[in-house]
Amino acid sequence: MNLKIAVLAGDGIGPEVILQAKKALYAISVAYDHEFIFEDALIGAVAIEKTRNPLPEQTLNLCLNTDAVLFGAIGNPKYDNNPEAKVRPEQGLLKLRQELGLFANIRPIRPFKNLLDASPIKREVIENVDFVIYRELTGGSYYGDKVINDEGTFASDICEYSENEINRITHQAFKAAQGRRKKVTLVDKANVLETSRLWRKLVKEIAKQYPDVKLECQYIDNVAMQIITDPKQYDVILTENLFGDILSDEACAIMGSIGLMASTSVGESKALFEPIHGSYPQAKGKNIANPIASILSAAMLLEHFGLQKEARKVYEAVEKAIEYKVVTIDLNPGSRFGTNDVGDFISNVI
Amino acid sequence: MNLKIAVLAGDGIGPEVILQAKKALYAISVAYDHEFIFEDALIGAVAIEKTRNPLPEQTLNLCLNTDAVLFGAIGNPKYDNNPEAKVRPEQGLLKLRQELGLFANIRPIRPFKNLLDASPIKREVIENVDFVIYRELTGGSYYGDKVINDEGTFASDICEYSENEINRITHQAFKAAQGRRKKVTLVDKANVLETSRLWRKLVKEIAKQYPDVKLECQYIDNVAMQIITDPKQYDVILTENLFGDILSDEACAIMGSIGLMASTSVGESKALFEPIHGSYPQAKGKNIANPIASILSAAMLLEHFGLQKEARKVYEAVEKAIEYKVVTIDLNPGSRFGTNDVGDFISNVI
Ligand SMILES: CC(C)[C@H](C(=O)O)[C@@H](O)C(=O)O
Ligand SMILES: CC(C)[C@H](C(=O)O)[C@@H](O)C(=O)O
Repeated sequence: MNLKIAVLAGDGIGPEVILQAKKALYAISVAYDHEFIFEDALIGAVAIEKTRNPLPEQTLNLCLNTDAVLFGAIGNPKYDNNPEAKVRPEQGLLKLRQELGLFANIRPIRPFKNLLDASPIKREVIENVDFVIYRELTGGSYYGDKVINDEGTFASDICEYSENEINRITHQAFKAAQGRRKKVTLVDKANVLETSRLWRKLVKEIAKQYPDVKLECQYIDNVAMQIITDPKQYDVILTENLFGDILSDEACAIMGSIGLMASTSVGESKALFEPIHGSYPQAKGKNIANPIASILSAAMLLEHFGLQKEARKVYEAVEKAIEYKVVTIDLNPGSRFGTNDVGDFISNVI
Repeated sequence: MNLKIAVLAGDGIGPEVILQAKKALYAISVAYDHEFIFEDALIGAVAIEKTRNPLPEQTLNLCLNTDAVLFGAIGNPKYDNNPEAKVRPEQGLLKLRQELGLFANIRPIRPFKNLLDASPIKREVIENVDFVIYRELTGGSYYGDKVINDEGTFASDICEYSENEINRITHQAFKAAQGRRKKVTLVDKANVLETSRLWRKLVKEIAKQYPDVKLECQYIDNVAMQIITDPKQYDVILTENLFGDILSDEACAIMGSIGLMASTSVGESKALFEPIHGSYPQAKGKNIANPIASILSAAMLLEHFGLQKEARKVYEAVEKAIEYKVVTIDLNPGSRFGTNDVGDFISNVI
């Protein structure tokens, strides 16, 4: 297979972990006789520094003209600590999601057998946990109008949802559930929010088209607790943008490290793959960042293009690294292996 | 001391658990020679059934004319499953918070020594955890304009915050931190939301007036994870309404059971005390609901009125119940003790 892949390494540890994902993809291309062409482009704080634009025209065009986007991380403390900055790295990612129409963010939560004890949660609670979060990604308060008055004494954010935005991801979630344990949990705050009531109404309608799938509705506050106390109950979690952001990071606690979680963002035609750990600026350049999430993003990319065998291979190589403890310090405090070592090991196993 | 207490037992298990709190308060009044006068009033689904109003005028008047409100629970599946209901139980609680000006909801998270193993989280992670959540309670998307179009194809919620709303609870949080470990963590989503940026700006300003207190700012998605992976880092968590709702329920995972968490809601003059578990309709009338959260709400009430010794006494009686395993099935699956037994034991110890 021939694939043209835009590589947006971004900020912080983005470049060093994405490099390992590229190595893994390269190893796969050799082993299975594919051709993957990588093209790098700027995004985020590094893009602002060079072009004053968190998503330069050139980057967007590249992404529109490639098969897939491999994304690193975004964000820089310089902007976080300056609430009044008008141009911000995150805008690059948000705009990219919108321009590529990536309305669904998919994050699987399935702890590694050999890492069950790395989680702060007890083994018996997380053993065999296997669920996937479908987070709406191009709507809600991320994209609604924002207001701040001139005196800086009042601000507002609006959360908006329309039928079409809710329906398209809901169908995806139900279809996913059909290939799994046939249960969808809609997470909302329907006892308070109007948008949640709209979600609940529309999702219940759509559920009728999937009689083999069971629908459950739970409140976000309750789920924030149950995802820790009883995670096995979940199969497919469906939710709006901000709730999905919160829950999918929270679910990292189950995995043992945020350095293990990858995600796919998809729309009608485009797809983007990213580790969910963010830019982790404190670790930048220290060769300590965990590359596994990026490498698993690469596996999700392969899967997305129907390369199941290849994806499996990457996944197994990651499992081997974990089994042999060729991992970074977040997973093994005394580890002598750095980002590069882990990446090399995995691509060698492939 | 003479106290007039409005008792709003509400829905589901509300009445049965609040009864136990009243028993405990009665025991205290006898032991320490106070006079507590209880007056019951309707709220929530039961109020809708009897008066079509989730917060009848009479209830509001009573609350405005008493020293404190002891609150049970609110909510009924009948309304949850009907997204189009115009009158909803929760409106009663939301309106009450607003009318009484209860702008700060305070939830302490400190696991009981004898219950460390009841949590799904490992003992070493939660041992000695001791933090308190200051949740803004009368602003944000709970109270902003809500829109649903006639066709039911579009909805919106607006989240608004003004300087005054942010400042008053921020001062409370910093004052609380001064009496504790001197750290405030502001939780927001300043990389996306304008209201979060306003919070960050104003809270940083106010922090300057408390040079002995350290301020840290963290994103909600990150905190949703860290509250599980590294809860010891927190002392006072300060956040807006919806984020506070999510985090304080999530933090129940640390306590081992949501049946153990109480909260105080305060404003300039009024105060309301409530267990945070909600109406738990499946357990209603079965004598299995854990009354400890309600009894601890009563302890918070005593503390609020300066009755420290009395509050301590209640707290110790609860600890004794836990130590002797006189607890409901949520804390001890094989337990033969019901709601009433636990309540009786605790008030007898007092
Ligand atoms: C960086 C930030 C804007 C982003 C989000 O909130 O969507 C991140 O947390 C994520 O989940 O991908
Ligand atoms: C019942 C509901 C409206 C309420 C809230 O969201 O505030 C509850 O979850 C709480 O936290 O007290």
